[in-house]
Amino acid sequence: MRAYNFNAGPAAIPLPVLERAQKELVNFQNTGMSVMELSHRSKDYEEVHNRANSLLRELLGIPDNYEVLFLQGGASLQFSMIPMNFLKEGQTAHFIMSGAWSDKALKEAKFFGETRILASSKEDNYTHIPTDYSLDEVKDGAYLHITSNNTIFGTQWQNYPDSPIPLIADMSSDILCKEIDVEKFSMIYAGAQKNLGPSGVTVVIVKKEFLESAKEDVPTILNYRTHAKNNSLFNTPPTFAIYMLSLVLEWVKEQGGVKNIQKINEEKAGYIYSAIDNSEGFYKAHATDDSRSLMNITFTLPSEELTKKFLQEAKERQFIGLAGHRSVGGCRASTYNAVPKEACAALAEFMTEFKNQNS
Amino acid sequence: MRAYNFNAGPAAIPLPVLERAQKELVNFQNTGMSVMELSHRSKDYEEVHNRANSLLRELLGIPDNYEVLFLQGGASLQFSMIPMNFLKEGQTAHFIMSGAWSDKALKEAKFFGETRILASSKEDNYTHIPTDYSLDEVKDGAYLHITSNNTIFGTQWQNYPDSPIPLIADMSSDILCKEIDVEKFSMIYAGAQKNLGPSGVTVVIVKKEFLESAKEDVPTILNYRTHAKNNSLFNTPPTFAIYMLSLVLEWVKEQGGVKNIQKINEEKAGYIYSAIDNSEGFYKAHATDDSRSLMNITFTLPSEELTKKFLQEAKERQFIGLAGHRSVGGCRASTYNAVPKEACAALAEFMTEFKNQNS
Repeated sequence: MRAYNFNAGPAAIPLPVLERAQKELVNFQNTGMSVMELSHRSKDYEEVHNRANSLLRELLGIPDNYEVLFLQGGASLQFSMIPMNFLKEGQTAHFIMSGAWSDKALKEAKFFGETRILASSKEDNYTHIPTDYSLDEVKDGAYLHITSNNTIFGTQWQNYPDSPIPLIADMSSDILCKEIDVEKFSMIYAGAQKNLGPSGVTVVIVKKEFLESAKEDVPTILNYRTHAKNNSLFNTPPTFAIYMLSLVLEWVKEQGGVKNIQKINEEKAGYIYSAIDNSEGFYKAHATDDSRSLMNITFTLPSEELTKKFLQEAKERQFIGLAGHRSVGGCRASTYNAVPKEACAALAEFMTEFKNQNS
Repeated sequence: MRAYNFNAGPAAIPLPVLERAQKELVNFQNTGMSVMELSHRSKDYEEVHNRANSLLRELLGIPDNYEVLFLQGGASLQFSMIPMNFLKEGQTAHFIMSGAWSDKALKEAKFFGETRILASSKEDNYTHIPTDYSLDEVKDGAYLHITSNNTIFGTQWQNYPDSPIPLIADMSSDILCKEIDVEKFSMIYAGAQKNLGPSGVTVVIVKKEFLESAKEDVPTILNYRTHAKNNSLFNTPPTFAIYMLSLVLEWVKEQGGVKNIQKINEEKAGYIYSAIDNSEGFYKAHATDDSRSLMNITFTLPSEELTKKFLQEAKERQFIGLAGHRSVGGCRASTYNAVPKEACAALAEFMTEFKNQNS
């Protein structure tokens, strides 16, 4: 039986994608070898690589004046590469702090130059996306960095800022979950292991004009220009992870694209938020109403004891990955694109049943 | 039909490994999910991760005073990370240049500090491993860097230097191909996509004492200490690539370990070198006799025209990846661990047949 996979990342991958990968694992399109065994310079592989690129462009509506790169190292390496490339002497990088990942991005930027916290919801234990800031304050800054969705706290930006300086977003945990206007951003980056496929590949979408403004004296492999010039084939890319990404993107397209995925995600999250909201206070959402995430639903139960019991019973019913992060406690259901509607409906049903038996 | 895969990397993976990965791709050990969908913090995944670590230690005889790390970014990122961590103000990094990959490692080190070429075979178009150097000249250097095997030129170190300063080797293209004495090295690194599995994971073997000598002010993700402290789980590792690595290592063990793999590799390379040596000058090896690689066999034919014809006929018989690199011309057969004996015997036979028909 297939588990109900609510892991925060690495996370669920669509079953049809896995089945297709399984089918062609040993012999990829009659090449007589696995896709993993193809040269990254071969036509067969380049088709996979370019297909992933063009599908992502199509699905997110990425304009031609943006580059799409496939890198390694996850968002964590981006935290260093961004200031290394874009934070120049005498400039300041601005941050809106909405959780642990914003903290990490800020910490690394400090290695390379001046930083400033424009706003933070840390004092409220990141229950919401900060709103108390003025964008007038970032003038002449190198860039403004935000984390679009906060896996640990279960919050998500609803409306992105109209930043007067380049806006950079870590979208690792919500890319492709809803329609976005790419042109609001100078750069978007995302580790694949939540909404795009397996871990091991990082997608970077960067405006060419911004890319061209980068510093020159950056080590080759850490220089975005290197990868843009070489169609992400400067060095050997993680070919299998990119192949999986291409299959996941095909699947998103088959689901009716991002527009339809968004509707499904709203329905999925709706089941679980309803179970919380209709529990007469048995379940409490960590996020405030205006910042609720479509991707990570965080909630607490009345006691540590009931939380443990809930997680235990959930596990017995094959609900996997529901324990909350220690900084929030309670539970977290990650309902990424590949988590089926049925899994979310089943969880909501179980939550209500558990509440009825334990309150 | 399975192709005869002589790709230079990504390269052949053992068929039983691919078949096992295929079998458990959708449901890993009755977890109800793919290994790609497991949390990297789960027990199921950690077993895979730790198994890869302990198998590599066992197979290479890595002593306890060495760390084994699984990183991302390939050897290309190591070219930057090594000087970033180990090349201190006022020190010099020494290089023995044996090919294009040595060049790249040197180029990146220059971003971070002083470098010196101790020896180079560039003037001979890298037909051999340099021998005209004195190790007395490296005293007080930060480290001595070598490339153990040169994919493009088909040369390989036969006896590693007894370096008075920390010796660092890029073993991307020959790790596990033969027995080595790890204790000669302060650090060994290898992208996985030749002898260890798919692209997307890089193995680093580093002496703890050397690691502890690293600089302090290095960005977190680029700091080896970060990964050593966290058992390579500081950030999300490329879990599927590490799983494949663990299966490849299991397979090496089943083949009788590195000792026996070496014997098989000598036999495999022997078929092809014999076809060259017995061709009455029709095929010419690029490498000199004392530097011949067990892993990449480079050779030229009497003319461009015959080379083209050879590659065309080879392709028709399902020999894949035999075109040489443009800087050497001719042909290259990469005979990594996973390339079966039969493939090498078949290639040698075809080479002899082709020579007889065309000379």
